[in-house]
Amino acid sequence: MKLSIKKEILTESLNQVSKAISTKNIIPVLSGIKFNLTMEGLFLTCSDDDITIEVFIDKKDINEIEEVGSIVIPGKYFIDIVRKIPSDIIKLETDGLRIVLYTNNAEYNLNGINANEFPNRDLDTIKTPIYINKKIFKNIINQTAFAASLQESRPILTGINFNIKENILECIATDSYRLSKKTITLNEVIEHEVNIVIPSKNLIELTKIIDDEDENIEMHIFSNTILFKFNNILFQSRLLNGTYPDTSKLISEECLLQITSNLNELYNVIDRASLLTSEKEKNIVKMETTNNELIISSVSQEIGKIEERMKVEKSNETEVKIAFSSKYMMDALRALKSENVILLLNGEIKPIIIKTPNNENLIQLVLPIKTF
Amino acid sequence: MKLSIKKEILTESLNQVSKAISTKNIIPVLSGIKFNLTMEGLFLTCSDDDITIEVFIDKKDINEIEEVGSIVIPGKYFIDIVRKIPSDIIKLETDGLRIVLYTNNAEYNLNGINANEFPNRDLDTIKTPIYINKKIFKNIINQTAFAASLQESRPILTGINFNIKENILECIATDSYRLSKKTITLNEVIEHEVNIVIPSKNLIELTKIIDDEDENIEMHIFSNTILFKFNNILFQSRLLNGTYPDTSKLISEECLLQITSNLNELYNVIDRASLLTSEKEKNIVKMETTNNELIISSVSQEIGKIEERMKVEKSNETEVKIAFSSKYMMDALRALKSENVILLLNGEIKPIIIKTPNNENLIQLVLPIKTF
Repeated sequence: MKLSIKKEILTESLNQVSKAISTKNIIPVLSGIKFNLTMEGLFLTCSDDDITIEVFIDKKDINEIEEVGSIVIPGKYFIDIVRKIPSDIIKLETDGLRIVLYTNNAEYNLNGINANEFPNRDLDTIKTPIYINKKIFKNIINQTAFAASLQESRPILTGINFNIKENILECIATDSYRLSKKTITLNEVIEHEVNIVIPSKNLIELTKIIDDEDENIEMHIFSNTILFKFNNILFQSRLLNGTYPDTSKLISEECLLQITSNLNELYNVIDRASLLTSEKEKNIVKMETTNNELIISSVSQEIGKIEERMKVEKSNETEVKIAFSSKYMMDALRALKSENVILLLNGEIKPIIIKTPNNENLIQLVLPIKTF
Repeated sequence: MKLSIKKEILTESLNQVSKAISTKNIIPVLSGIKFNLTMEGLFLTCSDDDITIEVFIDKKDINEIEEVGSIVIPGKYFIDIVRKIPSDIIKLETDGLRIVLYTNNAEYNLNGINANEFPNRDLDTIKTPIYINKKIFKNIINQTAFAASLQESRPILTGINFNIKENILECIATDSYRLSKKTITLNEVIEHEVNIVIPSKNLIELTKIIDDEDENIEMHIFSNTILFKFNNILFQSRLLNGTYPDTSKLISEECLLQITSNLNELYNVIDRASLLTSEKEKNIVKMETTNNELIISSVSQEIGKIEERMKVEKSNETEVKIAFSSKYMMDALRALKSENVILLLNGEIKPIIIKTPNNENLIQLVLPIKTF
């Protein structure tokens, strides 16, 4: 393999593909980047068993292709070197199982691995992928992924459930203490119902390499994997096995009391009340209505207590006391984009539904904590 | 105690005094801030056994002093609350051993501790302190402290040696592998020779609260402590016991070869060569002269090798090979401010002296590592 390429182009592609470099270092070849130079262009591939990313650099973006070939290069070191090299053009050449990167004054020799040792992932596409606008797709992940579980005790909850019926995509994440649900209308009707669970951490990595162009991303769904295709990038993730819990009954249509308040103000009040709370004690903050005021409070036997009042709008004269995790409530509020927020309350042991006015597409739910 | 004060003024003073809040939490009162309100103003004090800071807010900067008194307030929580409160004016009032902070809509109650339990540090001053310009003082610390030892095995090396004879102040830090020495001419001649060692981590904390005004800082030296006085702040540090090693013979007047090169370029070349090195293996980088070139290289059996060349100016035709820790060399180069740098070499097992042209006030020294 022998080529010369603009540093800028190589760096951008390395940043994208490197999201799949294994950091576990158990299998050395997986901490590398596979370079495969053909007359059509350069394919870069990384894979960590959980996700595989392939980035293609077209021949028109390569200064010179002198000799095709392939090799696996130690990922982290190569990326660090390319990033710190001062020259605009980078020349790369293999010498047996070594890769030599050279500039006018310097020579960088890295020990490579035979490309045949790199696992062969099937990155096939299908004829009828599902199309979603890139920005909408990123929003889905940003507004739901935080609610997925980080505990491996129930693996299925570490994913985001993608459910498509006809032209309605419903995305749900829950760790069984809170839930986020986003509903999107697709541009076309899907023939077969889709019900899959994608690891949320893989989706978060994916959002990091999706740009903000007003274009679509393609979803190619297989029985055990999903392949996302956009620009010159293929991103494959495994799917989680198992049945995602039915959460539809949690989100009640009825409600005892509806509270409308300024979103930022409510967030800041809860943020301050949370200063005396601790993760160990579930970050408990209490909320109580009296007339047209909300009283937010927290107590720590050791440190002290906080009490703040704020004006809100109530749908009726019912008064409600409820306690919840300030962390979960703040996560939910951060995912909303609006001036005002609506809290739907059904009593102190019923889920709190959080949404914004005139928008049924995004629903956040936080379970209360019994303290009263 | 009862007062109201602008949030901005209180926040600035809290930031300054909080540098001495104990993070060890062994003695609860030391994780607090002592408030002592007199008719003259408010004294804030923190102490962690190693350093004590007292900040004074004059009565003219306090909106209202309603009742004098004192109390110790839990430091971290109080600072977080004040920072996040939206109101411009903060009202503070003690209620027995509780401190109540209130705004229009909120009440924050924190459990305090009796001010009598706060350790009584002697913050006396002397009549003839030593004066140093603030900027010059900060430069001394920034250009030497990194070379002090972090190991407690030889406590004396964790400090910076301040040595004053007549009007010459010499500051030295060394961890026995590298050394930094800064020499300053004071405005006045000191009567008695000073030779003290101040813990470098305390000096680093001190530089964080010294502003950039063109004013002096006062040094009040006692047998076991030093008190720095500036603005409305008293900063006391303990001194390290023991005799600081005599390092004067390390810095040789003679030299076999003098190399002059661009400072940034040399730094970047060593930075790139260091990419293959590791802390575990002492970050070894090799340097070799041939004609008017410097060859910087590094090797890692596992990963590969790097070799860069750069043009330099040599004082004579002697050729030298030497190896050193890239980390120590980069630390030393970062402390210099100049376009060019001078390396004085005396052979592969002799210290490397690093300085800038026409400046004998700052000398960096790095010991070589034997590899050839």
